[in-house]
Amino acid sequence: MKLDEFSLISFLSRKLSVFNSEVVVGIGDDAAVVKNNDGFCFFTTDVLVEGVHFLDNWKESVSNLYYSLGRKLVAISASDIASMGGIPTYGLIDLLIPESYDLKELEEFYDGISDFCSELKITVIGGDTSKSSVKTFSFFLVGKGNGYMLRSKAKPGDLVAVTGTFGDSAAGLEQLLKGEVENRFLVERFLNPIPRVEKGIEALNLGVKACTDVSDGLAFNLYTIAESSGVAVKLESEKIPLSPHLLSYAGSRETALKYALYGGEDYELIITFNERLLSDVESLGFTVIGEVTEGKGVFVDGRKVEKKGYNHFGGKR
Amino acid sequence: MKLDEFSLISFLSRKLSVFNSEVVVGIGDDAAVVKNNDGFCFFTTDVLVEGVHFLDNWKESVSNLYYSLGRKLVAISASDIASMGGIPTYGLIDLLIPESYDLKELEEFYDGISDFCSELKITVIGGDTSKSSVKTFSFFLVGKGNGYMLRSKAKPGDLVAVTGTFGDSAAGLEQLLKGEVENRFLVERFLNPIPRVEKGIEALNLGVKACTDVSDGLAFNLYTIAESSGVAVKLESEKIPLSPHLLSYAGSRETALKYALYGGEDYELIITFNERLLSDVESLGFTVIGEVTEGKGVFVDGRKVEKKGYNHFGGKR
Repeated sequence: MKLDEFSLISFLSRKLSVFNSEVVVGIGDDAAVVKNNDGFCFFTTDVLVEGVHFLDNWKESVSNLYYSLGRKLVAISASDIASMGGIPTYGLIDLLIPESYDLKELEEFYDGISDFCSELKITVIGGDTSKSSVKTFSFFLVGKGNGYMLRSKAKPGDLVAVTGTFGDSAAGLEQLLKGEVENRFLVERFLNPIPRVEKGIEALNLGVKACTDVSDGLAFNLYTIAESSGVAVKLESEKIPLSPHLLSYAGSRETALKYALYGGEDYELIITFNERLLSDVESLGFTVIGEVTEGKGVFVDGRKVEKKGYNHFGGKR
Repeated sequence: MKLDEFSLISFLSRKLSVFNSEVVVGIGDDAAVVKNNDGFCFFTTDVLVEGVHFLDNWKESVSNLYYSLGRKLVAISASDIASMGGIPTYGLIDLLIPESYDLKELEEFYDGISDFCSELKITVIGGDTSKSSVKTFSFFLVGKGNGYMLRSKAKPGDLVAVTGTFGDSAAGLEQLLKGEVENRFLVERFLNPIPRVEKGIEALNLGVKACTDVSDGLAFNLYTIAESSGVAVKLESEKIPLSPHLLSYAGSRETALKYALYGGEDYELIITFNERLLSDVESLGFTVIGEVTEGKGVFVDGRKVEKKGYNHFGGKR
């Protein structure tokens, strides 16, 4: 039997119970939230699986592939914490590799983890190892903070704003899969995403309540906001930030928008917020792309878009 | 290149830095320890990988195999928290399964997780999913407590005591691998280990300082105590607890002792403690099996035993 990832999670999580009153947010947002005497703790986990999230043969066109993968493993987990407005703090790594492996690659991988953990001041406090015929890397990340944002807090009347540009990563992946790495910028955006940790914290500090990160494509992740908040989201396509690199690669704005809406792994943040915060939000570098209204669905230039995205059966719960 | 798991971890962890003063114990014990205003948090992770920790074809001789695996995934992580004297509290699951899978097995697996989490009052707060050609289950467990025990706290003059019996699990695994499940008790001990959470908490409350759990065999895990504490451990073989099931399966006490010393996955606790606690420790149900002295190594009946164990390249950091 096949279920898509999101149905599977919803199906299985019904089996699980909550036993601890400190759990403020369990399964269903970018990270779990637990209250303690110091404030809040955030918990998330992400995996990179060979053959699903990366191919070993990319090392033919990318030098230091495993360095990037180590770095990316930390980055995509940190992005979940960023979307809560939290500070990434402690990590644990599960490292599953074949019995015979290339020690240089493994060192590269750890250098990627180590360098990016240093950058974000994350302490790796443990992990597990095993052999496996499929290279599999799991990261568990703990964050902390004094408050948090949720994808379910969008309200009619809110404005919608984002960090960065969209679609670059999907175009980068496409090039890697073709084995034609011509636009390094786009490939870098796929391999070395930058989690918007500072932006998340700054948005939270401004009073922003609703946030998520874009792992599955702008359309899909706007749907997660719309559905969990019980609202509609309306975008103006001309406001969606696209990089000159993507525009050049795609050949037209219309094609570039498809990468932006239905690609994935941008790891940019989407926030919704009350209009009175507009100038503050803009001064943080966010770009307003639309608004929240009563209703259902996600609309671009008045037309409802499909709820489809980068469901590699490998996104987030 | 091949390195055994323990050398690999020691090699790689040199690359990682500690950025948070709240980290009391990082990589190197059964779980990491972080101090906070509420006391201490413990963090651990364990994996079960098809072809390494279990074989899919065991379902031919074991009904509800995936139920047991779900339960076991929680149990072996909880055992790490138990050996710190902590209370298992929150968990996250990474679930990696083939694109086409048996939904009934997956439900069984989640029932196993759910039932055992209910038993231990663990709340599952998140996770990640992906497809993978190798079934891989990762659990990340957070525990809490007001104090903790470490494997490095054994002192010359301490007594050594354990919970339960040893070697059963290794004999159970042997039967599964042969496809001859004759002694259900032994197979159950492998598939459904019981983490000694209550015993760990009780030992900590008595004032016991040194503890570890036996995942890699009694000899190996005594070596982890001896080496990290800078002491020697001396056992009397006649005191090592062996089940009548193992004695019957092995045919002689001598053979049974080999399973006990060099098998693994017993998930029993080893503690060392000052003699003045003897009657209290015994009243908790622990069995004294030897003593800690100055020196190096692990000895049984005066003879040094090898530091070998269940290094399936899948033990703990």
